[in-house]
Amino acid sequence: MTPDLRLTDLHPALDDPALTSMNFLNEVAQRYPDAVSLAAGRPYEEFFDVATLHRHLDRFRRHLAEDLGQSPTQVHRTLFQYGRTKGIVHHLVTRNLAVDEGITVDDEAVVVTVGCQEAMFLVLRALRATPRDVLLAVAPTYVGLTGAARLLDLPVRPVAGGPAGVDLADLRVQVHRARAEGLRPRACYVMPDFANPSGASIDVAGRRRLLDLAAEEDLLLLEDNPYGLFPAGDGDRPPTLKALDTARRVVYLGSFAKTVLPGARVGYVVADQRVGAPDGTVGLLADQLAKIKSMVTVNTSALAQAVVGGALLEHGCSLVAATVRERAAYTRNLRHLVAGLARRFGDAGPVRWNVPAGGFFVVVTVPFGVDDALLDRSAREYGVLWTPMAHFYDDGAPVDALRLSVSAVTPAEIDRGLDRLAALVADELTRRVGTAVR
Amino acid sequence: MTPDLRLTDLHPALDDPALTSMNFLNEVAQRYPDAVSLAAGRPYEEFFDVATLHRHLDRFRRHLAEDLGQSPTQVHRTLFQYGRTKGIVHHLVTRNLAVDEGITVDDEAVVVTVGCQEAMFLVLRALRATPRDVLLAVAPTYVGLTGAARLLDLPVRPVAGGPAGVDLADLRVQVHRARAEGLRPRACYVMPDFANPSGASIDVAGRRRLLDLAAEEDLLLLEDNPYGLFPAGDGDRPPTLKALDTARRVVYLGSFAKTVLPGARVGYVVADQRVGAPDGTVGLLADQLAKIKSMVTVNTSALAQAVVGGALLEHGCSLVAATVRERAAYTRNLRHLVAGLARRFGDAGPVRWNVPAGGFFVVVTVPFGVDDALLDRSAREYGVLWTPMAHFYDDGAPVDALRLSVSAVTPAEIDRGLDRLAALVADELTRRVGTAVR
Repeated sequence: MTPDLRLTDLHPALDDPALTSMNFLNEVAQRYPDAVSLAAGRPYEEFFDVATLHRHLDRFRRHLAEDLGQSPTQVHRTLFQYGRTKGIVHHLVTRNLAVDEGITVDDEAVVVTVGCQEAMFLVLRALRATPRDVLLAVAPTYVGLTGAARLLDLPVRPVAGGPAGVDLADLRVQVHRARAEGLRPRACYVMPDFANPSGASIDVAGRRRLLDLAAEEDLLLLEDNPYGLFPAGDGDRPPTLKALDTARRVVYLGSFAKTVLPGARVGYVVADQRVGAPDGTVGLLADQLAKIKSMVTVNTSALAQAVVGGALLEHGCSLVAATVRERAAYTRNLRHLVAGLARRFGDAGPVRWNVPAGGFFVVVTVPFGVDDALLDRSAREYGVLWTPMAHFYDDGAPVDALRLSVSAVTPAEIDRGLDRLAALVADELTRRVGTAVR
Repeated sequence: MTPDLRLTDLHPALDDPALTSMNFLNEVAQRYPDAVSLAAGRPYEEFFDVATLHRHLDRFRRHLAEDLGQSPTQVHRTLFQYGRTKGIVHHLVTRNLAVDEGITVDDEAVVVTVGCQEAMFLVLRALRATPRDVLLAVAPTYVGLTGAARLLDLPVRPVAGGPAGVDLADLRVQVHRARAEGLRPRACYVMPDFANPSGASIDVAGRRRLLDLAAEEDLLLLEDNPYGLFPAGDGDRPPTLKALDTARRVVYLGSFAKTVLPGARVGYVVADQRVGAPDGTVGLLADQLAKIKSMVTVNTSALAQAVVGGALLEHGCSLVAATVRERAAYTRNLRHLVAGLARRFGDAGPVRWNVPAGGFFVVVTVPFGVDDALLDRSAREYGVLWTPMAHFYDDGAPVDALRLSVSAVTPAEIDRGLDRLAALVADELTRRVGTAVR
């Protein structure tokens, strides 16, 4: 087949691991549909149902008429037509942030987006103005962040994460180093709660120090918080960076994929930073993001927003209240996984893992290289899927660790998956001994 | 208020007319909600209703189970979870293209997008690989195209449009000129059917010559077709460029905003071009676009796609059949507008207009400058909104013309709008005489 175009003539990101790795992981999952997936980060789906969709839609429709006083024509137009670029559930988002997070922001500072991914994309597009701009990101880093940055020709420089969630000394070093090279570090991306993929969280003191450092270094923080509502058991929910942010240092990235419905593809960004124009006028960063959004997706599907809006209304805008059952399921699964790891690998062996205080992910460290070839063998020969941690580092170096996810499985599947993983690990350890002997 | 950020430190497109003009037009419309809008390009809304939404959703659900044989768990997952990057209604899109347009493409060549805007954005991102890349676009040009290109640092060079829809001699000149400057013209953007904003269409012979020229000059064509289903009366629907394209020269951009529902935000791109990788493998351009999409919006809302899918299924995937009432309304309005212009401005006066064979838009040429200040005065003093044609040219030069839209008004509103426009024109002509005398 003669090609019509050459890949090398297209945007260079298309041949970059940040974009191809997601594809590879999806392909492996599709090739082995019967494997137990401890890889998928998708949310628990047992509680979704179609009747709920219809109910949420109707609920939001009533809200437009009864609470907002829209006429039948206006309701009609809000649901069916092109709409406000910044969204139609922005006021419910701010209520949710007030109720669940103690965050107070103006409705106008919110842009409702096509999932949190679009929110990240818009922010990175706004911040990347020149080839001197770079982004800092706590490592290991969600691959969707790295991929979006790559598409925007924005280099991402890692900041050490570590068990405390972020290494503040390293953050300062990275800022200074970038500036010494004549570069502009525009922001630091961080997931303070049960991070993907590390599972690590930053404690309250650490959050305050991070905000202080951001102020000292004149740096924005991009706070991504998809998992904060899922502490294990009755675990604490420390205040978000945004709740502690008195100086508009934090751009807050939110998702309804894990709390309401991934199929809606609704997320948002809170961008209350004041932007000064050369003519002396001052507006919100949210309005600049909306300008970008108008050229990327125009506006977020009104139907999808209506479903999310109805879900928020049903629980007085509290997602803490809305996700009681999900939280219980994730807690059960996380505990089951950690106990299962202990039972199979002991606490003195070469296999180690962290015990996150919540969220979807656990990182397992093993005494051998964990690459895509091993994942492929794991799927083919052992019937279990997981994610090589190397996918979350940008430098391509090998990492002796893998990520397990507990969000989309049952306890029985966790057991089956761990049995298979243990068999794979035993085989790898044997091979390794064999190699050492030869 | 002290700013936190400076606009001049953000992406330069944010201060560019291509992005600010859309904002300005929206603001004027919001400031004068009681003005008659001959500006809005949104579709006719009388036939939308909520019951239809629920019906379409259920219809698509049955399709997954009964036609595609999905198990209840699979149906559930398709509707509620993260989904296939290229979409879940791709097979219905290709059926629609076969039924209505005589276009035969593989399901895998389709990427379902968040409206046609995302489709454009993905294609431009893929094609813009180096600072030497430029895009050609038939002028006047839809401002969403120009804005997306600006966000991707991709210069847009105009190609003369004219009454035949595209000036092929000028297209060749522009290609050669760009190449002589060391630039790479990656594609030419064109709307062959009832273009926005010109209303012009390209006849069949012109389409064939355009394809020949694209082959001779080794150029891709980006065919955007939001209005093709709306010829006035029993008017012809000439084959799309894609239907005539035997050499995969055409990337086809589709929208369901005007045919099904703007509030769904569902569009698509057909990209069957073969892309050769350095390792010798060959894949589809659609797969490269999907990689980009995974980092922009992940996937298009399954709920929104389900509604569009149900609408397609209800009419055997024919949108020609689904839009009989809409087509009649647009035809009635277009004829009413053209007759109303003739009645008010005569056929020998200084005010002239084109008579498009279909679509939403008519261009009115007047013997005085038409700028944003005039629009503001028109809204404030005369209560009528329209769009200055200067917004659709990228060079900022004044244009003595305005765009009228017939899609979202009644005949009575058209009459009222035209009366007011005639009063504004009379006033401008008087002022002009006054100025000439002074």
